[in-house]
Amino acid sequence: MSPTSSADQAAAPPRRNDRRRARTRARLIAAAREMLVNPHYAERSIAEITEAADVGLGSFYNHFASKPELFDAAVAEVLEEHGALIDAATSDITDPAEAFAVGVRYTGRLVITHPQIAQVLATKGMSLLDATTGLAPRLRRLLVAGQKSGRFADIRPEVAAVSVGGSLLGLLHLWLGAPESVDESWCDEMVERLLVMLGLDATEATTLARAPLP
Amino acid sequence: MSPTSSADQAAAPPRRNDRRRARTRARLIAAAREMLVNPHYAERSIAEITEAADVGLGSFYNHFASKPELFDAAVAEVLEEHGALIDAATSDITDPAEAFAVGVRYTGRLVITHPQIAQVLATKGMSLLDATTGLAPRLRRLLVAGQKSGRFADIRPEVAAVSVGGSLLGLLHLWLGAPESVDESWCDEMVERLLVMLGLDATEATTLARAPLP
Repeated sequence: MSPTSSADQAAAPPRRNDRRRARTRARLIAAAREMLVNPHYAERSIAEITEAADVGLGSFYNHFASKPELFDAAVAEVLEEHGALIDAATSDITDPAEAFAVGVRYTGRLVITHPQIAQVLATKGMSLLDATTGLAPRLRRLLVAGQKSGRFADIRPEVAAVSVGGSLLGLLHLWLGAPESVDESWCDEMVERLLVMLGLDATEATTLARAPLP
Repeated sequence: MSPTSSADQAAAPPRRNDRRRARTRARLIAAAREMLVNPHYAERSIAEITEAADVGLGSFYNHFASKPELFDAAVAEVLEEHGALIDAATSDITDPAEAFAVGVRYTGRLVITHPQIAQVLATKGMSLLDATTGLAPRLRRLLVAGQKSGRFADIRPEVAAVSVGGSLLGLLHLWLGAPESVDESWCDEMVERLLVMLGLDATEATTLARAPLP
């Protein structure tokens, strides 16, 4: 009996189980994502989460070891989606400095376009800098590409990344705390100065940070 | 009867009370400061705090509405002391760019000189940017002085402040998380790039960020 035919014979029930498992997990994450809108999401009970997800209470621990693990997965999914949107918006841009400007400007504007995601970013804070999905790896790739192409000065990528990430988190904190006085021009001014920090001259930094967004 | 003589006659007992009140408050803050060394300080009970302070359990609420209020006061005191140290170290420096470099380099080095204060800064995070004592007001004064004297480019002080503060918090996060691989030269590189961001040319930024500290 070949492994293939053995697999064929035995596969049907496990596959159905796998699909059910995946569906339950997806429902839990979807419910957690809805809850992220509320700044006090971490206080929701597991019973509330499984009820919102329309899955059995007992199934929670088949998928997640703890509530924070579920919310981390939900946050990772949201940020990965935002990262994919930036990828799509910058796919035709070959200059890493220009792609950097677009990505950071879109991310700052989350305060207006997706305030709940901006709030999640602000709440997660610096721990996001260590993430292996979402925004941090994309930022690192851009910084390294910018250095390789000679667009950016020769700075430790980690130092550049914490400076950019920290500045962006600082802006989100400022903007979310005073939405009536901060606007997009503050974000663009920060991007302009970050481009100068990375080594661009001020005139070009201004052009890139004020250009129409794709 | 003049108000003065009335005060003279009635003052003795209240003054003694005031001194006792001030002493109890100072003891509570001192106990809280000791506890800040432990990353889980917020979990300590009020009974543990009053016992460590050697004051009556009931006296706590005469001074603080809540445990976070006490710890906030303790953090504010620690950071105000660090700010005063920076003031002393930079009192002879007339150039705001140079004073900025010294202050940020000392603050980054807290990871080595006072790791518990560095940890408190990292834990408090962006909320420190809104503080009216400690580091935030000193940073704002330097940024405004640097702009007035023409040393720094014309940037909204709030934007410059969140970029500097966010970068510094990012560096503390990075350094505290990997003390074996990060060192002072990373901090100085960040300061160099922040000076470039603020408008200095790269050569001068390098000089200021690598000069011997006072």
